[in-house]
Amino acid sequence: MKAEIIAVGTELLLGDILNTDAQFIARQLAELGITLQYQTVVGDNKKRLTDALDIAFKRADLIITSGGLGPTDDDITKETAAEYFNRKMVLHEESKNRLLSYFKGRNMSPTNMKQVYMPEGALVLDNDNGTAPGCIISDGKKTVAVLPGPPSELKPMFEKGVRPYLEKQQDFTLVSKVLHLSGIGESAAAEKIRELMQKSSNPTIAPYAKTNEMVFRITAKGKDKEECNALIKPVRDEIYSILGEYIYGEDNETLVSSVMKKLIEKKLTLAVAESCTGGLVASRLIDHPGASAVFMTGLVTYTNESKTRLLGVKPNTLDKYGAVSEQTAEEMCIGAAESCGTDIGISTTGIAGPDGGTEQKPVGLVYIGVYCKGKAVTKELRLSGSRNKIRNAAATAAIELLRQQIIQEDKNGKDKDQR
Amino acid sequence: MKAEIIAVGTELLLGDILNTDAQFIARQLAELGITLQYQTVVGDNKKRLTDALDIAFKRADLIITSGGLGPTDDDITKETAAEYFNRKMVLHEESKNRLLSYFKGRNMSPTNMKQVYMPEGALVLDNDNGTAPGCIISDGKKTVAVLPGPPSELKPMFEKGVRPYLEKQQDFTLVSKVLHLSGIGESAAAEKIRELMQKSSNPTIAPYAKTNEMVFRITAKGKDKEECNALIKPVRDEIYSILGEYIYGEDNETLVSSVMKKLIEKKLTLAVAESCTGGLVASRLIDHPGASAVFMTGLVTYTNESKTRLLGVKPNTLDKYGAVSEQTAEEMCIGAAESCGTDIGISTTGIAGPDGGTEQKPVGLVYIGVYCKGKAVTKELRLSGSRNKIRNAAATAAIELLRQQIIQEDKNGKDKDQR
Repeated sequence: MKAEIIAVGTELLLGDILNTDAQFIARQLAELGITLQYQTVVGDNKKRLTDALDIAFKRADLIITSGGLGPTDDDITKETAAEYFNRKMVLHEESKNRLLSYFKGRNMSPTNMKQVYMPEGALVLDNDNGTAPGCIISDGKKTVAVLPGPPSELKPMFEKGVRPYLEKQQDFTLVSKVLHLSGIGESAAAEKIRELMQKSSNPTIAPYAKTNEMVFRITAKGKDKEECNALIKPVRDEIYSILGEYIYGEDNETLVSSVMKKLIEKKLTLAVAESCTGGLVASRLIDHPGASAVFMTGLVTYTNESKTRLLGVKPNTLDKYGAVSEQTAEEMCIGAAESCGTDIGISTTGIAGPDGGTEQKPVGLVYIGVYCKGKAVTKELRLSGSRNKIRNAAATAAIELLRQQIIQEDKNGKDKDQR
Repeated sequence: MKAEIIAVGTELLLGDILNTDAQFIARQLAELGITLQYQTVVGDNKKRLTDALDIAFKRADLIITSGGLGPTDDDITKETAAEYFNRKMVLHEESKNRLLSYFKGRNMSPTNMKQVYMPEGALVLDNDNGTAPGCIISDGKKTVAVLPGPPSELKPMFEKGVRPYLEKQQDFTLVSKVLHLSGIGESAAAEKIRELMQKSSNPTIAPYAKTNEMVFRITAKGKDKEECNALIKPVRDEIYSILGEYIYGEDNETLVSSVMKKLIEKKLTLAVAESCTGGLVASRLIDHPGASAVFMTGLVTYTNESKTRLLGVKPNTLDKYGAVSEQTAEEMCIGAAESCGTDIGISTTGIAGPDGGTEQKPVGLVYIGVYCKGKAVTKELRLSGSRNKIRNAAATAAIELLRQQIIQEDKNGKDKDQR
């Protein structure tokens, strides 16, 4: 199967937004083993979109569009695709009911009703994160999947509706396993398993650098899931034997979800005291559903006064070593746990910039601390980049340090049991 | 002039990298007033790239390519473009000297020499940040600018070589003004100025929805900046007269930067007490450089105990109305300001889901509060979507409510002065 992507939106042509949808879809198609030879971007213009569909269907049998499903007059993707397939637009009752319940108790603009008229005979794709349903129109030879533009709507719709549809069309199965690593960079990790990567053709092993982490994707091609999984297992095991200490989870696991699950399982409560990350650590941990079982309190102590008042950091420590110091990080994490009565305390303090750096304490210098059941550990980080980048990297490092301490605590507990 | 972008690279088709070059070039073209109707991505394949050039030159007179200028055999963009214009590849002495001095004292792969053969008669664009020069080939009617793929090489080359070349071809200037709105949706905002949008052709007015905000872009075409600015002003003023209360800033302003600048200017200190947003409000405000001048303390009070201990929320209030209630939001924002001794307190409390909702208090019900100099205001939100989306929308709404209260406080102050 050959596919193309057509992203629709004048804002893409003006450079107002980045075409992240195309990257997401491209990666999904690669995973599915579907060949992608062209991507196109076109504005919200019926004539030009029709031309683009025409050109693309001369080269491919599957087109995936993103964008142009909004409620306004210049959103024309769905209508243009329908016309291309000679389909009438008909009211889709189920989508209408979803739309009305979405707006329940709020004002709905009458133009939103346009969004629930769908091409006759199309497979309608529910939108769990917005008002515009997507759809798949096919005449048996040519197929177009019409998806909304916002990534938060497009991604789940692709995964829930388009991917299973495409998997059915393929006469082979591709299965991927993703291993998530933190605490090691892409090139260092790839170097360690270079030989394994080179000799592996089925499954393939591909490294990807992501923000604050890296992943290896192991992809096997086989006649069914079982065959693929059997191909993946020995390769997965070999990667674990080399890089196991850096692997925090598989597939949809995130660093936060792996840490939070462990905390919930072990009933360890925590409190967070943040200075330079200013709420990022708390906010990431709380993004995990069920966080309320273990997350007790977060304190953004941005001033010396609040570090002393809320965390009991000694004025003497602040005077002698400064707010950005190992000593302050240590007292902050201990103080967080003690003042909130939790098992664990996490702390961050540093200089996120762009101002405030000195020769001795430059922008990017951050101390993080984790106190866990009587033992406090701190770490010095030397980060670079924008304020936003430094704050995010510091938050990730603090969560990674927490993960290591829980594992350590786990080991200690087991050692004790064995004695 | 009509232009198209062709990005060349198999890694784009596999989704390994994001097409940031296209966004950069698109924005530059928009600023130059050059119409961009299509963007294409194609792999490192001569036949398909030739086809893409063919299709693009039927629709446009200027093509800008990115990528495919590397030293390996599959880098074919420059050679394919030369063949398209019937130009031989000839050694470019100056580029050769630059290349040799670039590699001085280091090993150069012999394949790098390929990079300094240029299409005969082309305008060669020096690469100050890498080994691949770019070029512009033109036959008077059709023009192609061939640029390297890495953004760190493409961007400076565009600015230094391509932009001046294109500016010479244009006989007019375009100027844009962006108005940022929050607290109103795209369709509602567009509805209110529909008539103005329809009757405006120079300048044009275009609405865009972004995450948690919307913008109007006003773009004027004239012989110089002054003429464009004079065309923009009355339209800008008319939009302000209709939607002024929702406009928080212009051009590069963000909601957070507009609020933080006001707080810093007025020396108003603040403390934040968050439940469901769990650090997001604090973290967004602290992302503003210089936040430490006004941001004092953030409290993520995720439990009833911490709401009472840190914020002084009455146990009776929590018992009677629940943690997710207007009353609790009010006591939280007052308690934040009082316990931290700040002018302003902000609070959020709600049910972010996916669990924890009831019929009376469903997932998405959030109360936000802002206390500002003796007066507390609360607001009920009914949000939908994922946990992450609800938390982000609630954080934005809280910052927007803060913005409104500062404006109100400003007005009150001025009224008082006049009395």
